Amino acid sequence: MKESTERKVEGQEIYRGKLLTLHRDIVEMPTGTRAVREVVHHPGAVAVVPFLNEDTLVLVRQFRYAVGEELVEIPAGTLKQGESPEECVQRELREEIGYEAKTIAKITSLFPAPGYTDEVIHLFIARDLFPSQTEGEEDEVVEPVFLTMGEAIEWLQTGRIKDGKTIAGLLLALDFIKKEKGG
Amino acid sequence: MKESTERKVEGQEIYRGKLLTLHRDIVEMPTGTRAVREVVHHPGAVAVVPFLNEDTLVLVRQFRYAVGEELVEIPAGTLKQGESPEECVQRELREEIGYEAKTIAKITSLFPAPGYTDEVIHLFIARDLFPSQTEGEEDEVVEPVFLTMGEAIEWLQTGRIKDGKTIAGLLLALDFIKKEKGG
Repeated sequence: MKESTERKVEGQEIYRGKLLTLHRDIVEMPTGTRAVREVVHHPGAVAVVPFLNEDTLVLVRQFRYAVGEELVEIPAGTLKQGESPEECVQRELREEIGYEAKTIAKITSLFPAPGYTDEVIHLFIARDLFPSQTEGEEDEVVEPVFLTMGEAIEWLQTGRIKDGKTIAGLLLALDFIKKEKGG
Repeated sequence: MKESTERKVEGQEIYRGKLLTLHRDIVEMPTGTRAVREVVHHPGAVAVVPFLNEDTLVLVRQFRYAVGEELVEIPAGTLKQGESPEECVQRELREEIGYEAKTIAKITSLFPAPGYTDEVIHLFIARDLFPSQTEGEEDEVVEPVFLTMGEAIEWLQTGRIKDGKTIAGLLLALDFIKKEKGG
């Protein structure tokens, strides 16, 4: 394997915001060449595939300002300081769909855009849901969408579901359940 | 369906860089509440699942400075000005694995992180590869990784593949091929 690590030569913080921090670094590659790396630092997030029963999923529809349209996604949200991924999953289920889960299991962790951000998304499956007090979030308008697994798969095959973590999450959850059943 | 569109009240360009542009906007939600939206503008990208033959995939291993580790990913890259997604796919295949493809087909387009970036990734499958002149990129060190589809699936189930577009891309490509075969 070739040596590939990039060494930071100098760095600059461009912006420290509410959610994101932006750095601009100069790195030296193993070849000796220098390159600019623009990095968006993010606190990390969770995303969760919630099964209301064996075949019904609860997704959420929300306007995404960055892309200028409404998207259908699995419930997800940014980790708060000191919060564990498991606590964050339960909080997002309460806030976004008004449920909590008796059973959650971690599927994997993934990097949504490793070319320019360190964001990691911890992906979970949630089952045995029970209704909880809804705690809406002040700066989000979110509407639940109930779909069978078959419908969800069709929505992602036909491009009605366009969110990367949702595509990865639904297909990995399907695979996870198949393996659990010994398939 | 609830009205959910967010209206921009004011905006500020924080940074215009080599790859990314960062904006900080104040938006008004349908509820009347105002919120801050930090948006990373990105030119868009392609990603491609390349089949060397019916069962062998060519992925790439590269150091990702933003996450501080080497990742195994499907070939991908940012669109150049005026370049079509199809041209970009062929260029990335040449640059990253030293092949071109006689046949490419679009699978879908996805948003890797719609919470804070407008980046869209156009996802393709490439078949009938033939060796081409390798055109390395100055600021990238990339090494090809040959895997069977079965190995690739195992790598993403066990967390050895952690890149979101690669997880979504491999599972969608598998599904695409199954459908093509009438499965």
